[in-house]
Amino acid sequence: MQFVHESLPQRVLFESGGAATGVASEVERLGARRVMVLAAPAEASIADQVTTGIPVVMRHDDVVMHVPTHVAEKAREAALAAEADALVCVGGGSTTGLAKAVALSTRLPIVAVPTTYAGSEATAVWGLTQGAVKKTGTDAVVLPRAVVYDATLTLSLSVEMSIASGLNALAHCIDSLWAPKADPINAAFAAEGVRALNTGLPQVADAPTGLAGREQTLYGAYLAAAAFASAGSGLHHKICHVLGGMYNLPHAQTHAVVLPQVVALNAPGDDDAERRLAASFASESALAGLMALRNQVKAPGALRDFGLKASQIADAVQAILPVVPTTNPTPVTSENLTALLRAAWEGSEPQ
Amino acid sequence: MQFVHESLPQRVLFESGGAATGVASEVERLGARRVMVLAAPAEASIADQVTTGIPVVMRHDDVVMHVPTHVAEKAREAALAAEADALVCVGGGSTTGLAKAVALSTRLPIVAVPTTYAGSEATAVWGLTQGAVKKTGTDAVVLPRAVVYDATLTLSLSVEMSIASGLNALAHCIDSLWAPKADPINAAFAAEGVRALNTGLPQVADAPTGLAGREQTLYGAYLAAAAFASAGSGLHHKICHVLGGMYNLPHAQTHAVVLPQVVALNAPGDDDAERRLAASFASESALAGLMALRNQVKAPGALRDFGLKASQIADAVQAILPVVPTTNPTPVTSENLTALLRAAWEGSEPQ
Repeated sequence: MQFVHESLPQRVLFESGGAATGVASEVERLGARRVMVLAAPAEASIADQVTTGIPVVMRHDDVVMHVPTHVAEKAREAALAAEADALVCVGGGSTTGLAKAVALSTRLPIVAVPTTYAGSEATAVWGLTQGAVKKTGTDAVVLPRAVVYDATLTLSLSVEMSIASGLNALAHCIDSLWAPKADPINAAFAAEGVRALNTGLPQVADAPTGLAGREQTLYGAYLAAAAFASAGSGLHHKICHVLGGMYNLPHAQTHAVVLPQVVALNAPGDDDAERRLAASFASESALAGLMALRNQVKAPGALRDFGLKASQIADAVQAILPVVPTTNPTPVTSENLTALLRAAWEGSEPQ
Repeated sequence: MQFVHESLPQRVLFESGGAATGVASEVERLGARRVMVLAAPAEASIADQVTTGIPVVMRHDDVVMHVPTHVAEKAREAALAAEADALVCVGGGSTTGLAKAVALSTRLPIVAVPTTYAGSEATAVWGLTQGAVKKTGTDAVVLPRAVVYDATLTLSLSVEMSIASGLNALAHCIDSLWAPKADPINAAFAAEGVRALNTGLPQVADAPTGLAGREQTLYGAYLAAAAFASAGSGLHHKICHVLGGMYNLPHAQTHAVVLPQVVALNAPGDDDAERRLAASFASESALAGLMALRNQVKAPGALRDFGLKASQIADAVQAILPVVPTTNPTPVTSENLTALLRAAWEGSEPQ
């Protein structure tokens, strides 16, 4: 057993219907008197609702996906002009990302109120894009001091979006088990996340307006982000990143299709991951558990349905091979990677 | 699902044989140039060994159990006189506790190198005693910035001490599942801790000089402390605290005997705890798993062997009832508590 694990300081409040109270208590705990609230127009009414108990000096709603630098700069200037002493962000990954960009230069503390299962609120990772180039980094100052999770705020996410986002979180959990900085603490988080997502996602699919499934999914998304940010990208994310970049495949669907193929390749070579996943899925094996969940939530099945051509597989293999993590439990070869992508392309049962 | 969980900032390095390297890198990361090393005379040679790579300005070896205030004061004065800018403590709970007492007033950062399974290094809890009165508190400043776990340093702990200490850690894990601030994140830590201890303790018993069991036990002790410090004392610790205080029963043995009786009472009333424990013990039930482990490590069986008299049970029940946590999953009555203590006294199989 050999690892280095860094636990990050963060308060997590979890209470359905409790966002306004939670935000008020966390802002008070920070001693903040001039709060800048970041929320996209789509989340304006949720932001109204959860910021009733705090001293707001300004609302900022210019939120753009992937946090373009000029958008971040504008938000920073607004924070300075308003003499804000804390940031409250209400929204999904783009909104949290904008708050992080502001915190990166101003060092203002963040209280995050997520309305999706993106998970950015649980990490110290920031990202900024200039044109087509995305720059990312890790800085303790961007980690929200507190996260207020209120599952009622996720009820407006469609079932389709919820499942896609939840399966993305599931991929974060599973891939963290064999990622470069995998360690047993990350694995315990990841296993708990798989358990929560495996419980919650079928409930969301069956009863979209019910809270129980949303709570489990939101909780699972938090754990997924924490585990993944600590462990780094494993084989699954390397594959999806290459496919997404080269062929512009849709993010969520690519993850959903590739994941079982990676589990089929890796779990037999990693007894610890296999044991943890089987237990979390309450299934006879990691793969059987994942397939049962996919079946319940009607996960997408084949990359050919999303624009990948069979003729592109060979190039993809050549692009993926150099970035395969050296920690991968099963040795990756041109041969087994080709077979994996072929299976993902045609949507055949993973072996 | 409703909880508040606070994650504390701490780096954990885990590498058998790697203590000196780990301590050097963590001290350098702190930018420290004048390190005060705290280690009891019994750990002097271990302290020599693990501090070879750091700038030591003084060694302090006046370590006393329960950290008497005058001992703490002396250490604080020594730290100030030496103009220390960091503390490295090498030892068990008393040594870590002394470093925390120094940090409490000086705010000096601590790098902890545990040589036992006490777990104090994973918490922000400090304790000081004046005469017979122990005062405890929680302060973020006493949480070691980094912990360097090196299982080779625990090899000198006898099997008997290791098992007693490991079962104490096991009690921390299990009791945290139904403690006042129990939450699913603590529960995930606790479940991982039970898994590690259930793996490690039989290995320590069977092969005292082997490293594998020591590593799992040390890792489990870390998780146990983290979960317990966050969740607080549950029924088990309330019972043991009263018995220890009223009848001066030995700490480790009392815990070992009482734990299965509490599990027998509580697990049937707490599906989540039952499920997590059964999975962690890889057993058909929480209780069966615990009993199998107790059997493997020859845990002590009856409180009458450690000085409790049957006639004292009635008074103990009256003292325990008012401190039973309101969160306890099974309602505690005079009747079932009497039966529990009677069973612990005579060492009968928990029902």
